This record gives sequence, C-alpha cells and structure tokens, in this order.
Amino acid sequence: MELKTVYRLVQKDLARVERQIKAVTEVDFPGLAELLKHILLGGKAIRPVLTLLSARFYDYDLDRLMPMATSVELLHTATLVHDDAIDKSSVRRGRPTVNSLWGEDRAVLLGDYLFARAGEFAAMTGDLRVVRLFAQTLQIISSGELKQTFDAFKLEQSRQHYFERIAAKTASLFSLSTQSGAILSQAPEASVQALRVYGTNLGIAFQIVDDVLDFAGTEKELGKPVGSDLSQGTLTLPAMLLLERYPEDNPVKELFTNRDMPEIFQQLKIKRAIEMVADSSIVDECYKIASNYCAEACQELDLLPDKPVRKALIEVADFVVSRRS
Amino acid sequence: MELKTVYRLVQKDLARVERQIKAVTEVDFPGLAELLKHILLGGKAIRPVLTLLSARFYDYDLDRLMPMATSVELLHTATLVHDDAIDKSSVRRGRPTVNSLWGEDRAVLLGDYLFARAGEFAAMTGDLRVVRLFAQTLQIISSGELKQTFDAFKLEQSRQHYFERIAAKTASLFSLSTQSGAILSQAPEASVQALRVYGTNLGIAFQIVDDVLDFAGTEKELGKPVGSDLSQGTLTLPAMLLLERYPEDNPVKELFTNRDMPEIFQQLKIKRAIEMVADSSIVDECYKIASNYCAEACQELDLLPDKPVRKALIEVADFVVSRRS
Repeated sequence: MELKTVYRLVQKDLARVERQIKAVTEVDFPGLAELLKHILLGGKAIRPVLTLLSARFYDYDLDRLMPMATSVELLHTATLVHDDAIDKSSVRRGRPTVNSLWGEDRAVLLGDYLFARAGEFAAMTGDLRVVRLFAQTLQIISSGELKQTFDAFKLEQSRQHYFERIAAKTASLFSLSTQSGAILSQAPEASVQALRVYGTNLGIAFQIVDDVLDFAGTEKELGKPVGSDLSQGTLTLPAMLLLERYPEDNPVKELFTNRDMPEIFQQLKIKRAIEMVADSSIVDECYKIASNYCAEACQELDLLPDKPVRKALIEVADFVVSRRS
Repeated sequence: MELKTVYRLVQKDLARVERQIKAVTEVDFPGLAELLKHILLGGKAIRPVLTLLSARFYDYDLDRLMPMATSVELLHTATLVHDDAIDKSSVRRGRPTVNSLWGEDRAVLLGDYLFARAGEFAAMTGDLRVVRLFAQTLQIISSGELKQTFDAFKLEQSRQHYFERIAAKTASLFSLSTQSGAILSQAPEASVQALRVYGTNLGIAFQIVDDVLDFAGTEKELGKPVGSDLSQGTLTLPAMLLLERYPEDNPVKELFTNRDMPEIFQQLKIKRAIEMVADSSIVDECYKIASNYCAEACQELDLLPDKPVRKALIEVADFVVSRRS
C-alpha cells in the first residue's frame, strides 16, 4: 500500500475536516481572519489522518470524529505558532512565520486562540475522556518544551533524556490523535491502549527523522533553514551521536560551550557539524533507531482486528521513516 | 455586609480551592514547580469566589464546583502571564514578572501549561457545557487581546469600541465564573442567564476601575507602575475622556501620534496626562460609569431566589467600584 492509497482511504472524510478547518478561518474580525488563513491553510494533516484511521477498526462515526480530527490539527498548529515565536524563527513550510510578519505578541495570542478553538472542538465530541486527554496532552507538550529551554546548550544529556523530551513534545500529540480515534469509535480498552502505544512510538520515530532532517535535509525540502536545532542550543540525536564519536575537537561542543562566539563563527560551526554528520554513518544510525520505533509501533497493531486499515497504519509508519521533508 | 463577611461565607470552600491550587504547583519537574509557585501563590481569588457564590442559589455541590473555581483562577493567571510577556512588563502584584525573571519564552510556555491545567479542571466538572464555555471564553479573551494590539496607538476609537474590548478581555472571564457556578448548581436557565449578565457587567465595571487606577492609583497600591496603559498605547476610558475634554494640546494625542519621541519625553507626557486626569472630574466620571454597570449587574440578581448570597454578590459589586488596588 502506498501513502496515497492511505489518503484515498480517508480522502472524503479528510476533505470534510479540511472544510471544517477552513471554516475556522472565517471569523468576523479581519485581523484575526488574516492570521488564521496564513497559518491554517496547507499542511500535511498527518494527525487528523491518524485520528480517522484509528477509528476504522470499530464503530466509525464521522460526526464524533470530525471535531476531534480538527482539534488535533489546530492543537498542532497552535504549538507551531508558539514554538516559532519563542525561537524567533522566520520561516516555516517555506513561508514567513506569523511572528516574523506580525510580531511575537500577536503570535502568542493567535496560539492561545487556536488552543481554545482546539479545546472547543475536543468538547464537541461530547466525550469527557477525550477532553481530559486533550488537556493533559497540552500540559505534556508545554512542560516538555519548557524542559527543552532548561536543557538548552547543555552537553551532558543522556539518550533517555532525549527520548523523554521528544516523547513529550511530539509523540504525545500523535498518541492523542490515535487514542482519541479509538475512544470515539468505542474500541475496547486493550485496543485503545494498543493505538496509544502505536501513536507514541510513531511520534518518537517522526521526531527523530525531523531531527535528522535538520542536519541532512535541504532548506528547500524542509521549508526552513537547516541546523536550526543547533542554533537554538537543542541537542538532538544526531548531535549526541556526533559528540559520542568525536569527543574531542567537536563543533557542537565548541558551539555549546563558547556561547559568546560571533554569529559568523557559530554558522561555521553549524556548517561543520552538518558536514561531519553527512560524512559519517550517523544519519543511517538515526534512521535505524527511528525504524525500530516504527517496528514497535506496528507490532501493537497485531492486537487490533485484521482490517485493511491495519495496512494503512503500517504504511504511515513506513512513510514516517522514509520522508525527506 | 462587608467584603470580609462575603469571604467568610465561602471561607471554608475557598480554602479547599486554595489547597487545590497549591497542589497544582507540586509537580515533578523542579523548573516548572518554581515558576508555578512564583505565579500561583497569592492573589485575591475574586473569580473563584464568584463561582462559589453563584452556586449558592440552588444545588450547591462543592465536589463539582471546586474544579471549576480552580479552573477560572488558573485561566486568569495564564492570561496574566501571557499579557506580561507580551507587554514586557517587569512588575505585577509588587513582584517581578515571570518574563522578567525567566524570559519571555518560558512565560509563554508556562501560560500554555496553565491553560491546559485550567482546561483539565474544567473537564473534571464532568459538565460539557461548562467545558465548551471555558474554551469559548479563552477564544474571546485572546481575540480581544489581539484586537487590542491592532488598536494600539489609535486615537480614533469610540466608547463602544472600548466597552467591547474590555467585555472581551476581562468581563468574559467574570461571566464564565458566575455562569459556571450557576450551571453546576443545576440553576434554571433564566438564573444562569441572570448570573451571566451579572458577571459581564461586573467585569466591565472591574476593568473600568482598573483603567482608572492606572491613572489615579500609586505604584505601591497597584503593585505595578502607573501609566502603563498609555505606554503600551492602550486607549482606556480616562484617556478617551481626556481627549474629549482637551482635543487640542493633549499629551495623549502627542504621545500616540509622535511615536518616535525619546523615552524621557514619553514619560513626561504620561506624567502630564496623569496630572490632567487628577485635576479634572474624569476619575469621578469613570467611577460613575463603573457604578452604573454594577447597578445593572445587581439588578439581574432580582431574578434569583432571595437568599443571603444575593447580598454577598451586591457586596462584591460595591467592592469592585470602591477598590484602590
């Protein structure tokens, strides 16, 4: 099964979710409408697809699912808007960020508005368990991001620390997406848990690949500058592996310890780190680790009924570890 | 009835809410715990008091109310944290702000975390209507704040515009506090609406007084510098009245039109505006307008059962238009 087959499976329902998201941009207040249009139109919608797919094993009811699929996409977008404001990033998905066009203050308020809209959609499912999960997920994401600010420019971080961090900031939302689909389709508890674990492992794999692409991708593929994690002081898996392999004379070490380095030298260190990663087997190793997480994710699917959607979720996992953007 | 009598009425229950809020600060992650302790301990808790009082007319069930009373206080705190980060304010309640101590990025993430915690407490009420109201209120607040950024330094604003703005940014949360108390006590719909309108009018009055105190208070009373609205370019009621009375040679007009003015001259213009307001009847007029809103608020209470708590809500309204901080 190819990814487009997966999308074809949910195409009609996803189109309804996308119309719903478009409707979110239609507000009375022109300033807000402009911000919403800028940020909400486009995007791969992988999280809503996961919600829709995860519900296909049991009692699929689009009226209850649609608000949740909309909710996870809005929640995701809200976190991106705040992340970019915090990191003062200027480009995302090949376009200027909200903060670069309208200032950080408006980006913060737009993110708040989107959190609230996402919460309202979660409540529209009529399922309080899902609403609680939604709220808990935002707690996990924001405290994970907060942890990242405390960890910035620290060299002494274990791999476990890294995996916990990305589990919080990325995998929790994947897990909400799959779990909520299961809950809203009246799946038995064992299946809810299987889809939760699938989502978590998939999300970890997704973030590892994201972190690799920040080294091995191109600005055109990513829609944002490469090496941005290093310039933010975020120690990701490729950087950790580079530190393990070259404990002496390492550009990441120099960058993180000598924070007063002029900008131009910082850029050279980042460039050097990217080259060293490219010349090593680090990219392959990271993809292998990500593949292992995906394999663990897919193993959970054995606990679910043998329906075509199982193949679709396996295909999503394959996509996650093969994507280049 | 005096305000302390009001507090005495809900003292025991409020103490439980305060313990609940304290428990929110007890998280595993020391960095986050420190931020939460800094921001959550202290505060007048007027919004939780309103939730508790509003539930006293009907079926008062503390187990359902407590999470909501906690929720409105956390939501309020979250908005303060984001406001201060956006305005780059350095002092609040006589103490340094989160952004001034830990940076704006952490203030944004702390606010996000608090929104999520507030949402989780709202969900703990088990009442989806209340959850939806919660989410809608955050939309109203954040879009109101966003509107304020678009209005900054604009002289041409109608009074209606001002009242709409403060209804969104302040009164909506007062209205959530009272309305949710009514809903959670199984009040009939007419009573829910009466308490909603009470909350809205009370909130408008509260914000008018806040805006007056920014001119007529002292830094010691307010716990933050006076004149901060003018330095943010926010046109509040006292400034509007000053513009109406002195259309020529007006320091507010000069401040808002000549944005490149050196900081020291800006401060002089603000000082002049404060003096002119003090020398006029503007403060009295604002308090009169606020009192009218409070009277409208209290009129709604006639629709509710004649219980002692009615007097308590009237007392809260009296406090709102007599407070000095």
